[in-house]
Amino acid sequence: MISTKLTGAVDIGGTKILVGLINQSDELLARRRVETLAEQGAENIIARTVLTLHELLQEIGASKEDLEVIGCSIPGPLDSKSGVVHFSPNLQWRNVPFVDLMQRLINVPVMIDDDAHCAALGEAWMGGARGKDCAVYVTISTGIGAGIVIGGKIYRGAHGSAGEIGHMTIEAAGPPCSCGNFGCFEALASGSAIASRARQAVIHGDQTDLSTFCDDPGQISAEHVVRAAESGDDVALRIIESAGNYAGIGLAAVASAYDPEIIIVGGGVVLSGSIMLQHARRSFRERAIFPLSSLIPIVPAALGEESSLWGAASLFSSMRR
Amino acid sequence: MISTKLTGAVDIGGTKILVGLINQSDELLARRRVETLAEQGAENIIARTVLTLHELLQEIGASKEDLEVIGCSIPGPLDSKSGVVHFSPNLQWRNVPFVDLMQRLINVPVMIDDDAHCAALGEAWMGGARGKDCAVYVTISTGIGAGIVIGGKIYRGAHGSAGEIGHMTIEAAGPPCSCGNFGCFEALASGSAIASRARQAVIHGDQTDLSTFCDDPGQISAEHVVRAAESGDDVALRIIESAGNYAGIGLAAVASAYDPEIIIVGGGVVLSGSIMLQHARRSFRERAIFPLSSLIPIVPAALGEESSLWGAASLFSSMRR
Repeated sequence: MISTKLTGAVDIGGTKILVGLINQSDELLARRRVETLAEQGAENIIARTVLTLHELLQEIGASKEDLEVIGCSIPGPLDSKSGVVHFSPNLQWRNVPFVDLMQRLINVPVMIDDDAHCAALGEAWMGGARGKDCAVYVTISTGIGAGIVIGGKIYRGAHGSAGEIGHMTIEAAGPPCSCGNFGCFEALASGSAIASRARQAVIHGDQTDLSTFCDDPGQISAEHVVRAAESGDDVALRIIESAGNYAGIGLAAVASAYDPEIIIVGGGVVLSGSIMLQHARRSFRERAIFPLSSLIPIVPAALGEESSLWGAASLFSSMRR
Repeated sequence: MISTKLTGAVDIGGTKILVGLINQSDELLARRRVETLAEQGAENIIARTVLTLHELLQEIGASKEDLEVIGCSIPGPLDSKSGVVHFSPNLQWRNVPFVDLMQRLINVPVMIDDDAHCAALGEAWMGGARGKDCAVYVTISTGIGAGIVIGGKIYRGAHGSAGEIGHMTIEAAGPPCSCGNFGCFEALASGSAIASRARQAVIHGDQTDLSTFCDDPGQISAEHVVRAAESGDDVALRIIESAGNYAGIGLAAVASAYDPEIIIVGGGVVLSGSIMLQHARRSFRERAIFPLSSLIPIVPAALGEESSLWGAASLFSSMRR
């Protein structure tokens, strides 16, 4: 038998859902990864998440009564007070009353927060921002956003939008962004920016092996570009270098704004040792203001793909702080 | 006779020093403006400041014993803990042990902080940020910097550099900045950027009346450009419009980073009703992320040129909070 009082941790992403059970000694006793299947809708995702929680409880010989709380990380924007997810493009959700829906299926207190906030909380609790008074977690994924830790807590701003750094302009006359603006950090350095530039290169007939990584030019993803770059494809290398340069410029703005002890980066394209991370670091050192350029380390998330899962697990305890 | 326990408030700028005396009811009992005369050195400035304090005490019938503390606003970067001003280009100061030097002349506790922090504190105490949990004061002057108020306190960051927003890149391939970088907010929207563009226009032989506002093209200041624009000069109007556009882009980045309740702008070129402020507001509404574009007001400093003076007066009490 295990100790009672378990915390359920859930990280719902566009492609996968991570579910875990954590005990009072902060040990991850069980963990499972299931597909998101966004096309089946919010209620289906929530039901499969609850089912997975039940299976994990069974797996470790615990019962539903041992589950004290559930924390969930969800791509926002969302309202953590009302428990409603306003809009989540990757999940195709609009105004989903997530907490209500989940509590109808499992009678346990549920809290939600957005993925960047959760990742920052997770890194502050168990990862690279542990013991730091001020740290910023930057996710460079399909989009770009940040979770800001000040005094060990998430700083949300007056309207819950602090850390919307993906929409800072870094090239005033740059390419259009999904937000309607031009030259945003996200429009120049995100996974979708990388994919979009690669598609244009293939359609434009540039000399590249990108099509060997993906038959349909319209389906080329940032992951394909990263793989092509790693295999030495010049066009892919140039696209990654450009995105890395802009990432460094964006991270330099993050340094100027918040002056954190550490900037933690997460997301597939900036994995440890990646070409893009190398370019981003060099560009950051060139572009950040002295002496922050040499004082603030840029490090990949210590918890890897589990930053948001641990942050979700800490939502109830971080509220009590 | 007046009540005992007075606070001395000092705002040292590149061209003028403001000195004031404030009582326990937060009333400014006396105030004087003296010239800076930076070329005479730090010790001279400090001696004249102390002399002015003595004169003001006499003016209101008080004595040195009534003066409890002195707070000073100084253009940074500086170390408020050690009381040393590391570097102040406008004052031509390097490593000036300000607090020590002043306390040798007047045996009263002295605190210093940089002008953007003081202005933010002043506006939080007595001006447009009063009662706000989160506000940003942006000074658009010779340089550009910000003081950030979070939870009613100044947020300084891990190395005292939070709010160095003048060095966020907003045009990656833009003009060179004094920091060695390119396309910084400050290189595109500050008073010195405006003056520099105007000088180039005159030297380039553009059709402009700018030279009627200043004989020597090398001496044209932002103030001359503002006056020429107000009199309808096309070149000056275009320069102010461009700087205003970039100011809006920079303020949009401030909104994305901090999501404050209010952004307060100070500095000569963005005075209430100024052409530049109008352009900056329009550009902010176009460039800031929805819904912050309509939620965050951009307002000129309520305390005008006295924001930093009031902030200096609050340095001791804000430390106690």
